[in-house]
Amino acid sequence: MPPFEVPEGDPFGPHNLPYGVFSLPSGGAGAPGDDGSDSDGSGSGSGGSERRIGVRLGDHVLDAGAAARALGSPYAALLAQPTLNPLLAAGRTAWSDVRRALTAWVTVPSHRETIEPLFHPLSAVTLHLPFEVADYVDFYASENHARNVGKIFRPDAADSLTPNWKHLPIGYHGRSGTVVVSGTDVVRPSGQRKGPADPAPVFGPSVRLDIEAEVGFVVGVPSALGTPVALADFREHVFGLCLLNDWSARDIQAWEYVPLGPFLGKSFATSVSAWITPLEALDAARVAPPERTHPLLPYLDDATGADGPGGYDLRISVAVNGHVVSEPPFSTMYWTAAQQLAQMTVNGASLRTGDLYGSGTVSGAEPGQRGSLLELTWNGQEPLELPDGKRAFLEDGDVVTLSAWAPGPDGTRVGLGDVTGRVVTG
Amino acid sequence: MPPFEVPEGDPFGPHNLPYGVFSLPSGGAGAPGDDGSDSDGSGSGSGGSERRIGVRLGDHVLDAGAAARALGSPYAALLAQPTLNPLLAAGRTAWSDVRRALTAWVTVPSHRETIEPLFHPLSAVTLHLPFEVADYVDFYASENHARNVGKIFRPDAADSLTPNWKHLPIGYHGRSGTVVVSGTDVVRPSGQRKGPADPAPVFGPSVRLDIEAEVGFVVGVPSALGTPVALADFREHVFGLCLLNDWSARDIQAWEYVPLGPFLGKSFATSVSAWITPLEALDAARVAPPERTHPLLPYLDDATGADGPGGYDLRISVAVNGHVVSEPPFSTMYWTAAQQLAQMTVNGASLRTGDLYGSGTVSGAEPGQRGSLLELTWNGQEPLELPDGKRAFLEDGDVVTLSAWAPGPDGTRVGLGDVTGRVVTG
Repeated sequence: MPPFEVPEGDPFGPHNLPYGVFSLPSGGAGAPGDDGSDSDGSGSGSGGSERRIGVRLGDHVLDAGAAARALGSPYAALLAQPTLNPLLAAGRTAWSDVRRALTAWVTVPSHRETIEPLFHPLSAVTLHLPFEVADYVDFYASENHARNVGKIFRPDAADSLTPNWKHLPIGYHGRSGTVVVSGTDVVRPSGQRKGPADPAPVFGPSVRLDIEAEVGFVVGVPSALGTPVALADFREHVFGLCLLNDWSARDIQAWEYVPLGPFLGKSFATSVSAWITPLEALDAARVAPPERTHPLLPYLDDATGADGPGGYDLRISVAVNGHVVSEPPFSTMYWTAAQQLAQMTVNGASLRTGDLYGSGTVSGAEPGQRGSLLELTWNGQEPLELPDGKRAFLEDGDVVTLSAWAPGPDGTRVGLGDVTGRVVTG
Repeated sequence: MPPFEVPEGDPFGPHNLPYGVFSLPSGGAGAPGDDGSDSDGSGSGSGGSERRIGVRLGDHVLDAGAAARALGSPYAALLAQPTLNPLLAAGRTAWSDVRRALTAWVTVPSHRETIEPLFHPLSAVTLHLPFEVADYVDFYASENHARNVGKIFRPDAADSLTPNWKHLPIGYHGRSGTVVVSGTDVVRPSGQRKGPADPAPVFGPSVRLDIEAEVGFVVGVPSALGTPVALADFREHVFGLCLLNDWSARDIQAWEYVPLGPFLGKSFATSVSAWITPLEALDAARVAPPERTHPLLPYLDDATGADGPGGYDLRISVAVNGHVVSEPPFSTMYWTAAQQLAQMTVNGASLRTGDLYGSGTVSGAEPGQRGSLLELTWNGQEPLELPDGKRAFLEDGDVVTLSAWAPGPDGTRVGLGDVTGRVVTG
């Protein structure tokens, strides 16, 4: 089907238009319809043509820089780049202008003759990590997840939440150098673990490899060191979002994390979508977060809602080897992305273009809505029954795929880019 | 005194030659001896000429790229850069070759006429963050420090060390975007804190602002995702070291850090020296680490010493407003930098050029050797008596300076670049 004719109901229609970075196979001349693909469209393969910004429409990718040049857009320089970072840094007015222009290019019939040759089938391109990650922070914003983890690891505690949980969005820094694009294989990490009965730690490949289904937020506009970013300025700084799988080795994590937090149990890989969905595409998906049960300090208090609701109604799906094991609802997150940004900077920490922060594992109230195997199998005690066997934690060869959609304008659906990854032996 | 004539005993003599990045004041033509300084030589000021790599000799800076060009060095392109990153990435052979060349340039009399005009007085240049920080990790490798902190915060625990402490170097990721060069003011951070008697958290500027005297290690050569770096490969990857002040807001940290570790209590600023000392300059300072009291897993076991001793005899000094309050000996660190690198990558996490990792607070066995005010004042209970008054924690206007030297060849001393910072109100 030609790129312009996206089927009605396609979650990647002209109301969506997420951004990514792609290259064409080695020797590909950049013409559309090349069929020498060296990729399934989700890999991080090297080689091939120069990287360039692409915008997804249905199952095609528009070469955004080439389109901008062809149509004499003032944003041609911003779009003819090997990474999204310059666009991220350009700020909210530019983001809106570019999005408006792109919408016109892919919908106005008079552009069709110019634009159509600049599309490539998704199956014919290699997708890359779409931006250079500056700092990576991971939060812990689902009350259901935090309570589940508390019950599993601290069964005797009076409250499954730590005392600070309802007062601030808890977060910590992760390793930005190991953020990888969807499709990248994940090597099972080795490390130390020590069970309660072990006299000393043992070394070996993790035997409790897990996923965490999250949403990642991508910072565009930096902030000055020493100056907090207010709740209401969220949309001035954050460009968009994507799915994120915060792979976790539970056995490594359990032994190492007291007192300074997760380190090697997380730092081996964090997978993100190849497509960054601009916040503007998700305006129809904004919803109020859950009712706050504790009063909030002013810098976190979004009760006035002056900036509109802070939550997003994203319906996530987690599949192992193609079998859906969970459907976590992002609308249940207690802390919003705006509150997380305010928290992250309230001490004066600066933002940089390309900062990425994860929401924390998304878990709904129901057992079938939990965003990690740790919770789904209750620490391995209740293995999942998959068509290809039982799973307490991930086995080598398992392919995990996160997908999601959100309500769009006029009854449409806005799809987020999948995050997929296969577990391989080290 | 002319740059070539460094006084005997100067810790920045031709046996040292640390690398930094400098610029000249606005309008400065780059000629030596300009006296229009807009800086005390330690600031992070903007403006002025382009940034360039400098090598320190005594109280002068050699324009390394200009010297390489003037002498037709094959390393001219590597040295004519605004940051050390390309040199860091060039690898051990290049590091040795460049150091050998620089040593010749500043010591062989026949070069004097060519080289001397390419020196600038330290007082006439602005020093910048010398490399782009990729990921920043902070360790916790001093047994004295870990025991002191354990006794202060967990007085009822049977052991002041957590069970994992003697089995692996504990670490966590910090915020690389807020690593700043020596001389940068540190804005007192605000945040939530909650004392045991407070019914709810309160918000405000930290009232327990502290320092942590550490040594930072700078990674040059990257590693591949999925492939651990062995202990013996430390010197293939790590270029050099510097002093590091891991500023810490103890009240913010205490309320936030369970269960995911330090976050805003640390992320507002981390100061590093303007000068990176290459490991080669410190060969005479290598010493065996303390005897290991617990058997180590093979990937951390440096008992064979095949690669030489893993510790460094660095004599650190901590001064508040010019008054020395502590002299922490780096030789007492239980875990070595090579062990930390092996730990950081044992799960397959990759290294990037510009990765920075801190040793953790350096504290010796004696009270006058503790590397934080938390320990020096025993959580504020025993304030320090300074000439300008008592100090439990830092007050606005306080200037903290870390300095250090190590034994060099033939009885010389190798100086590390100072790390200084002034506390200012937000």
